Amino acid sequence: MSKQVAVILSGCGVFDGSEIYETTLTLLRLDQLGIGYRCFAPDIAQHHVIDHRSGEVAEGESRNVLEESARLARGEISSLAELEAGDFDAVILPGGFGAAKTLSTFAEAGDEMEVLGELAEALAGFREERKPIGLMCISPVLVPRLLGSGIAVTIGHDPGVAGAISAMGGLHRSCGVEDIVVDFENRVVTTPAYMLATRISEAATGIFKLVDRVDELMDLQA
Amino acid sequence: MSKQVAVILSGCGVFDGSEIYETTLTLLRLDQLGIGYRCFAPDIAQHHVIDHRSGEVAEGESRNVLEESARLARGEISSLAELEAGDFDAVILPGGFGAAKTLSTFAEAGDEMEVLGELAEALAGFREERKPIGLMCISPVLVPRLLGSGIAVTIGHDPGVAGAISAMGGLHRSCGVEDIVVDFENRVVTTPAYMLATRISEAATGIFKLVDRVDELMDLQA
Repeated sequence: MSKQVAVILSGCGVFDGSEIYETTLTLLRLDQLGIGYRCFAPDIAQHHVIDHRSGEVAEGESRNVLEESARLARGEISSLAELEAGDFDAVILPGGFGAAKTLSTFAEAGDEMEVLGELAEALAGFREERKPIGLMCISPVLVPRLLGSGIAVTIGHDPGVAGAISAMGGLHRSCGVEDIVVDFENRVVTTPAYMLATRISEAATGIFKLVDRVDELMDLQA
Repeated sequence: MSKQVAVILSGCGVFDGSEIYETTLTLLRLDQLGIGYRCFAPDIAQHHVIDHRSGEVAEGESRNVLEESARLARGEISSLAELEAGDFDAVILPGGFGAAKTLSTFAEAGDEMEVLGELAEALAGFREERKPIGLMCISPVLVPRLLGSGIAVTIGHDPGVAGAISAMGGLHRSCGVEDIVVDFENRVVTTPAYMLATRISEAATGIFKLVDRVDELMDLQA
């Protein structure tokens, strides 16, 4: 039986959902390593819909996060409410604004943000069982609220977001786009991805390292 | 000045638009090779919208192909009407049902299908200038109508689709998911991708070969 990793999505598109390339590259690397995966997303309405051509809010339009995430999962997806840490060896959260708009209220509330209840519940299981947790792009901003204080993460080197992480009790480490930050004690791996990437191959390098390290941590005694 | 490749999209999602992984993997490989790219899509309504969770048509919903394709291009996209072969060294069409529903009427009309006028115009320029053309998944079914008869392509080994290609004057070659078919004379490269792939890493292998071969053909005297 191969290792199994849960991947948590928040829509399909960088400006209102999961970052598409980050998600695809995560799944590619997992599969290249022979690791099985299953995608999950909350069955709720998106915070809003962004026209990705203009960058403007599409007024009056509404989309369901699970249905949109299903595009990114080619239909193979389950509701986040069904995610049980016991069924998986690790969990990975790609980035994209969905993490800051739908999985949390970070985009609006900054360090006063709240995280989605069913996400907190699902992650608590992985934390309790000391299973590796990977997060990329803006998603590491969720760590202090989701997993507790004192955990080292990176979102690259954006001062505002790094400051918010510190204000919430997290530890921010600066990091280049092609590198990762690993908190071994807490079994958390992060990479800046499209917080910094200007080219898809740069994002791929950091994301592949993240997945490789999550894979190694799955092999280490928790 | 690096080589430049145009990538033509038809939405964002395998069942009603461009196949997301095929597109992402194409862009990844182009970037890894140092090749620049620009995405294009028609500024028209999608044939329909599929709920990718249920697989059913989302009745009453309408989406614009260029706006949805912009999700896949992170906002960096132009209208297909603006694509000029003279500005690029090659063109690549990922697959997904958008190729058979929006870029052509193949899904409904089979070998009686028509192709979208502005796509035919854009491709005619590449054909006339003898610039390499890559197509994957279901997109090679467009070749006889788009580029003319007698051109060797693959869509894997689906008898119905292969038969339609033959009926329209094309030459179909069976091919494995991790391989490509190259018509050197006509400078056309095709790979089955998700016509056959059961894993993303399989699709990646074939798509990377396709992009590598398109790159090589750009270096060869036309």
